[in-house]
Amino acid sequence: DDAMNPAEWELHSSWRRHCPEPRICLRVFRILSIAEAWMLAVAVGVAMYATYAQPAGWPIAVSGDYMIVFQLTSFAVALLLVFRTNAAYARWWEARTAFGRWLNSVRNSQRMLISWTPASEAYLVREYARWMASLTPAACAYLRRKDCYWEHCAEVLAPGEISWLRGCDNPPVKVLMVLSGLVARTSLDSYQRAAIEAELSAYDIALGACERISRQAAPKAYTRHTSRFIIVYLTFLPFALWSYTKWLTLPVIVVLTFLLLGIENIGIQIENPVSVLPLHSFCAGLKTAALNMVKHQHQVHAALEAG
Amino acid sequence: DDAMNPAEWELHSSWRRHCPEPRICLRVFRILSIAEAWMLAVAVGVAMYATYAQPAGWPIAVSGDYMIVFQLTSFAVALLLVFRTNAAYARWWEARTAFGRWLNSVRNSQRMLISWTPASEAYLVREYARWMASLTPAACAYLRRKDCYWEHCAEVLAPGEISWLRGCDNPPVKVLMVLSGLVARTSLDSYQRAAIEAELSAYDIALGACERISRQAAPKAYTRHTSRFIIVYLTFLPFALWSYTKWLTLPVIVVLTFLLLGIENIGIQIENPVSVLPLHSFCAGLKTAALNMVKHQHQVHAALEAG
Amino acid sequence: DDAMNPAEWELHSSWRRHCPEPRICLRVFRILSIAEAWMLAVAVGVAMYATYAQPAGWPIAVSGDYMIVFQLTSFAVALLLVFRTNAAYARWWEARTAFGRWLNSVRNSQRMLISWTPASEAYLVREYARWMASLTPAACAYLRRKDCYWEHCAEVLAPGEISWLRGCDNPPVKVLMVLSGLVARTSLDSYQRAAIEAELSAYDIALGACERISRQAAPKAYTRHTSRFIIVYLTFLPFALWSYTKWLTLPVIVVLTFLLLGIENIGIQIENPVSVLPLHSFCAGLKTAALNMVKHQHQVHAALEAG
Amino acid sequence: DDAMNPAEWELHSSWRRHCPEPRICLRVFRILSIAEAWMLAVAVGVAMYATYAQPAGWPIAVSGDYMIVFQLTSFAVALLLVFRTNAAYARWWEARTAFGRWLNSVRNSQRMLISWTPASEAYLVREYARWMASLTPAACAYLRRKDCYWEHCAEVLAPGEISWLRGCDNPPVKVLMVLSGLVARTSLDSYQRAAIEAELSAYDIALGACERISRQAAPKAYTRHTSRFIIVYLTFLPFALWSYTKWLTLPVIVVLTFLLLGIENIGIQIENPVSVLPLHSFCAGLKTAALNMVKHQHQVHAALEAG
Amino acid sequence: DDAMNPAEWELHSSWRRHCPEPRICLRVFRILSIAEAWMLAVAVGVAMYATYAQPAGWPIAVSGDYMIVFQLTSFAVALLLVFRTNAAYARWWEARTAFGRWLNSVRNSQRMLISWTPASEAYLVREYARWMASLTPAACAYLRRKDCYWEHCAEVLAPGEISWLRGCDNPPVKVLMVLSGLVARTSLDSYQRAAIEAELSAYDIALGACERISRQAAPKAYTRHTSRFIIVYLTFLPFALWSYTKWLTLPVIVVLTFLLLGIENIGIQIENPVSVLPLHSFCAGLKTAALNMVKHQHQVHAALEAG
Repeated sequence: DDAMNPAEWELHSSWRRHCPEPRICLRVFRILSIAEAWMLAVAVGVAMYATYAQPAGWPIAVSGDYMIVFQLTSFAVALLLVFRTNAAYARWWEARTAFGRWLNSVRNSQRMLISWTPASEAYLVREYARWMASLTPAACAYLRRKDCYWEHCAEVLAPGEISWLRGCDNPPVKVLMVLSGLVARTSLDSYQRAAIEAELSAYDIALGACERISRQAAPKAYTRHTSRFIIVYLTFLPFALWSYTKWLTLPVIVVLTFLLLGIENIGIQIENPVSVLPLHSFCAGLKTAALNMVKHQHQVHAALEAG
Repeated sequence: DDAMNPAEWELHSSWRRHCPEPRICLRVFRILSIAEAWMLAVAVGVAMYATYAQPAGWPIAVSGDYMIVFQLTSFAVALLLVFRTNAAYARWWEARTAFGRWLNSVRNSQRMLISWTPASEAYLVREYARWMASLTPAACAYLRRKDCYWEHCAEVLAPGEISWLRGCDNPPVKVLMVLSGLVARTSLDSYQRAAIEAELSAYDIALGACERISRQAAPKAYTRHTSRFIIVYLTFLPFALWSYTKWLTLPVIVVLTFLLLGIENIGIQIENPVSVLPLHSFCAGLKTAALNMVKHQHQVHAALEAG
Repeated sequence: DDAMNPAEWELHSSWRRHCPEPRICLRVFRILSIAEAWMLAVAVGVAMYATYAQPAGWPIAVSGDYMIVFQLTSFAVALLLVFRTNAAYARWWEARTAFGRWLNSVRNSQRMLISWTPASEAYLVREYARWMASLTPAACAYLRRKDCYWEHCAEVLAPGEISWLRGCDNPPVKVLMVLSGLVARTSLDSYQRAAIEAELSAYDIALGACERISRQAAPKAYTRHTSRFIIVYLTFLPFALWSYTKWLTLPVIVVLTFLLLGIENIGIQIENPVSVLPLHSFCAGLKTAALNMVKHQHQVHAALEAG
Repeated sequence: DDAMNPAEWELHSSWRRHCPEPRICLRVFRILSIAEAWMLAVAVGVAMYATYAQPAGWPIAVSGDYMIVFQLTSFAVALLLVFRTNAAYARWWEARTAFGRWLNSVRNSQRMLISWTPASEAYLVREYARWMASLTPAACAYLRRKDCYWEHCAEVLAPGEISWLRGCDNPPVKVLMVLSGLVARTSLDSYQRAAIEAELSAYDIALGACERISRQAAPKAYTRHTSRFIIVYLTFLPFALWSYTKWLTLPVIVVLTFLLLGIENIGIQIENPVSVLPLHSFCAGLKTAALNMVKHQHQVHAALEAG
Repeated sequence: DDAMNPAEWELHSSWRRHCPEPRICLRVFRILSIAEAWMLAVAVGVAMYATYAQPAGWPIAVSGDYMIVFQLTSFAVALLLVFRTNAAYARWWEARTAFGRWLNSVRNSQRMLISWTPASEAYLVREYARWMASLTPAACAYLRRKDCYWEHCAEVLAPGEISWLRGCDNPPVKVLMVLSGLVARTSLDSYQRAAIEAELSAYDIALGACERISRQAAPKAYTRHTSRFIIVYLTFLPFALWSYTKWLTLPVIVVLTFLLLGIENIGIQIENPVSVLPLHSFCAGLKTAALNMVKHQHQVHAALEAG
């Protein structure tokens, strides 16, 4: 889910949102293909039994009377799906909020540093911006255990610095220590240093939230129980449904599986938000924010002089 | 949704709220017109088939027996709509809360600045109020990528300043840097400066919340799945409903579509709250708040002297 | 809803809570009278049509078969009512919490001021308590745009001060500026002043929450859609219900309207919490808290000396 | 609900939790006895009417057809119960969290005080611990307007001090003022004093949350509407249920009343959490925490020296 | 529920999650075995009665008409399960968040300490890391009242120190006092000390949250009412279900019991999160984090010099 601009919001709320998107439906079908195949097989089996075996005197196994069991338990399917959806969405939004908090830490700590340091310490401010720009890639590489995020650091860090960080067990904590060390080298007094440290701590707390979410899944007992419950529900549904919908049972089961397992599947996807959020664009955006504040600092200075 | 005064609250809770508002209903109908047309077409087709084709020996496709499928799945429609509604409303209220936090930053930072600066620095306080008054228009212009909000700055900023800001990639951050620079020019000690910076940081965090909400839609998988599910549900409903309501199926489907898609549609509208909240009145209100605190400062001084 | 004491809690949880309270039921009936009259009229019309017109060969419009439509949509009524109720209650409790925060600001800021100022500045502490006691009435008068709250200031402010405040566009902000000015006149150091300012800022933030809640209704689209949906639901219900309950349809519809619209009506009432919370008792309580802390200060001093 | 230890948790999750507990069921029955008696009377009356009067030609009042009305409205009963339960639980947990915050204030403020004061001010630290130990009993006595909590102060306060506090209108605020005064007598600098004051303010805020919860019930309109709705629902249910369950209607109604009113009744009980939480054990626990930190301070000192 | 790595997330969202896991199902069955046995016994009894006794003229006790009672009350089962699930999950996640906050306290306090102390006080920093590494085991041992967590301290604390802590009534508070005492021995000024104390206080608050959650179960009235309600519901269900599903009632009841009591059982398990979260891996992780920051400090220093 990438960032939205006004035009995309426009599209997002147009009537086209109601149209089926074959490409996406197909992708979801492919994800669910094994469950779909199983459901279809069961439904075909039930249809065969009801059409040929049962009239021939085999024991009664397909009957509309069984529907009452599904009516009584549909609330339980509902509540498990609701819980799944809400818990997964809350995790996703908490992670997104934590990533957003990083941007505030960048902007607030640099705004204070720029206002408070004398002109003679401009090189420390530039160093700070340089390391701040590499903090988010380091954090993303650490969270996802992937190396592709380091490329965002190529412009701002020396190769030796990158290779040092890549060898660390926890690169973002190291970068935060460097930033903290840079602040300690300025002539700021201890109160001002602590105010900037507070923003670094806020970054660390937001990083901790992302770590927590990406390390700890929702209790698997719930996740599994939900999956299992829906599978049991859908597997036995044809036995009751046949009497009502006859051969239409086959498409009905396919569509129901798509709709119900589709909800469950989305919950599974967004439960681990660091794998679906656009981390590369966060890296790029925060790097730009960090570097531009220093680059355009003279414009702010000019505006202050002119005022 | 503009600000409410007591008279509007009165009206809001009167019995008239139950009356249909043809103008608004029509507008909603227009938004939903394509879906409505589709549903009506399906219903007419089903009616035709059931009236002429099916009695003539065509395969049975319209039957009251199918209703059980819709009864079993109505909970899933319900839960998707609930989730949609709650998530959209939470986004809307979070954005509204963030806009409200801006007002507190204006009032708190100026109150401290006015109390703490000596009379000789009154020109810095006025400068601060002038830039504070243009901070919200800059933030709104940035959030909505629209130029109309800059007109609120016309009274307080020089044309050159406005054109500089309009050229920036992130105007509100620049204004915050100017405000921070102004505070650094006062004779406040480093602790007092930091206390005011904390309010600027709070403004930045609230701005970040608005950016986050306006850049990141709820996971599109849910949004799309909800839209799709309701469309599938309503499209096939006439096949089951015909046996119960005959030709009344047509108006029933139209009304049901209006009611269910209406809920979904409101969710879509408020999912992007910065496009529905009254940003122009926020700009005007915060400008007034910023300028009046400085303008009426002498009254407070008089009250203190008299006490 | 006034403050509860233990005896009222006792009563609140006794079995008497299950008894109908004719006075309150009548009041609710009066509020809903127009909707009730409309529903009753529809039900009588349906009864007439079903009893006389339909058997006489008029087109069939009243049939138990239609009930399926109401069964399918009852979940949507439910979810809209749930959403309405939860959103309104959340607003109400957020406002109540904000009012409660005011009390903490009064107590915390005065506790610090009393501990930190030397005996020679007792007159500033008294001035502070005097203005703090008028802060809440000023805020309530501002929030509700009503003048009756100023009477709580009569004892503590001079008539000239009250008339000045009443003429202000935002009286509580002015009082906060006076309080801030008083703190600046003490001999506290800048850190101590800032600690007290933080409590004033907390007051301002709680005030901002109340402003936000009283200015911004929940999205009217939802409110209206909910009202409309219930009205449509109940209006057409007799057409399906007649076959089941015959002439009992009339009382059933009246009771259903009372129960369902009653829920919606409570949501409407508490959506604007500043008009239902006991603001006068908040004003009185916070005034007492502010003045008593100064009045009983010598007892605390005595306890400290004795320890 | 007292504190749980591991053995109780073990018991809590054993299969015995499914067994009926006659003692508790009886207690709940006694609480609900009047409602139960009423429901049973109605059910008996309905049974009589349906058995003797209706077959004898009296107007039809008992019919299975009426069940549709109860099916349509069961969602509304459900949503009111859900709302009741969630709101009451949220209040209960918020109060519990506030009580827990008190413990942190005790530990944090004393940890800082002990670390920062020189050995020569040990008597002030002991005084602080003594008053801190009496803060929670004072707060509990104030919240519940009961005198039994003062006994926890008997060991630490002099009789004169207790009688002074008991005579105060707001004892915990007085104790906080004493604590604040003690901190002001130490040689800590103004920043350190403010850091400890911040913990006292946190205590005051948690106290304010408890006051708010114990003074302000959930909107009574909801509470009453819920009670009334369930009573109306259950009272008329036998008229529809008789046709299905005949004389079993009597036990069914008794059990249903027990189950549904039982949910509502729990909501009522925990809505006022300060009357159900174990305040006496909080008083004892916080007193021990406060006194032990000072008593064992020398061990910490020894560990530091040895390190 | 142990920490997840990317490979486990992959597995977690694969189609295999839908497959029944016999081992886990068996374990759940064993937990629920007594309830299952009871349900099965009831179902067999009902089947016997309906097959032999009832046709022989015994009073009618098994009838499909009774199903309406279960349809009317299924919403109440649903709402109690939803409440149970949500409340238990919220407790679980709050505890997990508190454990995550500990990590931030370790990293933030050590980052500030390392940046701010001069090289001559390196031994105090090492002491601080040593005690910080034993803080989490001490807290876990205290929370779970188990001794096995002390083994994590074996490397960092002397045997005497461990035995002292094990003898304390509240070991983590003692360790926090030691840490606070170490900070007081550095040459940091009072503001810097307070900034580090704030992180220690944050640790204490997170510890308090864990204590609160592990001491206070959700109101037992709800827990018991939920268990009881489900048992009553399932126990009487066969009386109504027999007419629909005949001898299939037996497996149906077994599966329903498994699914519904399974949900309740998970709620019970995660209600006490400190017993299910991976505390040993938290201990190990936080120890590594604390010690590594000091061990790799020279690398950060080198990076700063090179910059």
